[in-house]
Amino acid sequence: MADLGVWGMGSMGLGMAGSLLRAGHRVVGHDVRPDAVLDGGSEIAVGDLDAAVLVVLNAAQTEEVLFGAGGIAGEMRKGAVVIACATVAPDFARDMAGRCAALGLHYLDAPISGGAVKAAEGKLSIMAAGSPEAFAAARPALDAMAETVFELGAVGAGSAMKAVNQMLAGTHIAAMAEAMVFGMTQGVSPAQFMEVIPACAGTSWMLENRGPHIRDGDYTPRSAIPIWLKDLGIVGDIAKAAGIEMPLTETALARFRAAAEMGLQAEDDAAVAKVYAAQAGVTLP
Amino acid sequence: MADLGVWGMGSMGLGMAGSLLRAGHRVVGHDVRPDAVLDGGSEIAVGDLDAAVLVVLNAAQTEEVLFGAGGIAGEMRKGAVVIACATVAPDFARDMAGRCAALGLHYLDAPISGGAVKAAEGKLSIMAAGSPEAFAAARPALDAMAETVFELGAVGAGSAMKAVNQMLAGTHIAAMAEAMVFGMTQGVSPAQFMEVIPACAGTSWMLENRGPHIRDGDYTPRSAIPIWLKDLGIVGDIAKAAGIEMPLTETALARFRAAAEMGLQAEDDAAVAKVYAAQAGVTLP
Repeated sequence: MADLGVWGMGSMGLGMAGSLLRAGHRVVGHDVRPDAVLDGGSEIAVGDLDAAVLVVLNAAQTEEVLFGAGGIAGEMRKGAVVIACATVAPDFARDMAGRCAALGLHYLDAPISGGAVKAAEGKLSIMAAGSPEAFAAARPALDAMAETVFELGAVGAGSAMKAVNQMLAGTHIAAMAEAMVFGMTQGVSPAQFMEVIPACAGTSWMLENRGPHIRDGDYTPRSAIPIWLKDLGIVGDIAKAAGIEMPLTETALARFRAAAEMGLQAEDDAAVAKVYAAQAGVTLP
Repeated sequence: MADLGVWGMGSMGLGMAGSLLRAGHRVVGHDVRPDAVLDGGSEIAVGDLDAAVLVVLNAAQTEEVLFGAGGIAGEMRKGAVVIACATVAPDFARDMAGRCAALGLHYLDAPISGGAVKAAEGKLSIMAAGSPEAFAAARPALDAMAETVFELGAVGAGSAMKAVNQMLAGTHIAAMAEAMVFGMTQGVSPAQFMEVIPACAGTSWMLENRGPHIRDGDYTPRSAIPIWLKDLGIVGDIAKAAGIEMPLTETALARFRAAAEMGLQAEDDAAVAKVYAAQAGVTLP
């Protein structure tokens, strides 16, 4: 049994905290502001934590929790591990790991994939990278939260793989929307589309997951438009620094931006189809 | 047992002819030029055919076989069916169907999906559209060639669905290439990419099918670059006529054009990764 803290009480963090509790650990949940304790059972001082799981929105919040005013890195005991789950640039992960190491803390670069349901079931995929010591210290938490833990090498490799995954996932959502509206202009209904394409070479994980939202006209946000502004923006920033052209990523990002400009920020990311529908003059279900 | 002719003796047409023979039909194979008889067993006059399966490259070849000099439409018996499998625009399919109907012929708009191996196994997916009479006349051939026959409505709907599928498939190949080279600039090897991404939300059918070609450095053409110049070009033409913007499709098409301009026409379509690699300065396996 480990003493664990989870920072970030969104649907992902809450689900992960629940999985940790079910596995028998002592868990304390914090919102991004360290004073907002939302969960517990037992109060655990930061200095007593074996691991801090950071399930916050982005790099800025990760840095704020660790090194901001009231940051926890200076309070954690030597040998404890920071498990950093936000999607960030590999260089940022390496910077955080170095600053944690200077304080005697292990750092696991550990972006997650799978969504809120898998988080609550303890069945996430974690793209993890760090030292053997970081993995060893993180193991009890990883075992409780994940179905699959990829061990990808040194810190930065997890964030790199996550960026690759997000680039594909975001681009595939926009491609699905482009294809579905194109089909509607040619007499292919969203229902026919979802009946046929998942059985053909044009399918993708995102198409099968998000396509039904458009078919059913259900834009309840499981994952909202701003996620892709953030994640495809991170990919674009890394690409720019690396000097690589990513025209499909840029094009997909521009579509999500257009969706945000249409006022769709609070809708499911499948609402990017509304950008296409408005331009094509078709009426979605 | 039916008397069947197959036009187009590429790897798809040959495989489909083989599946028809195995099912016990009498089959005659023709190259696009009607005098080039490549297969047979028995000679069957065009006037005796129950069905003509057209597995040619494009709309121009489809029209040439049916209505060109020595075209077969005028020779086929009334009540026979043309099964047209090339990827074409829905409007073209409707035009062909109308001209066939004027001669007393049924027309099945029947684009195929699945590749040469599935063709040879009789396990294609066929996106079929046409009248009940066209389906009835085509049934013996369809049963022998396909694992799945989607019945999509009136002529044009099959070609529309195929265009939707090709738009997605081509875009996903380019996205896979963009992601894989991006990953390489961040320390993610193609082998790691293929280990992790298929288990994550970023995966697609094309990524899982074509990604190994890049990982293994094997550009033997199963499906070559020019297929996508053709098929994404068809999609672009339909979109233009319909007044719909398809920025991802255009971007993917531009990448395949760049691949052709690099002299990669004879390589597998996964070689579109070489466009990205050259620009990013990374060395593919």
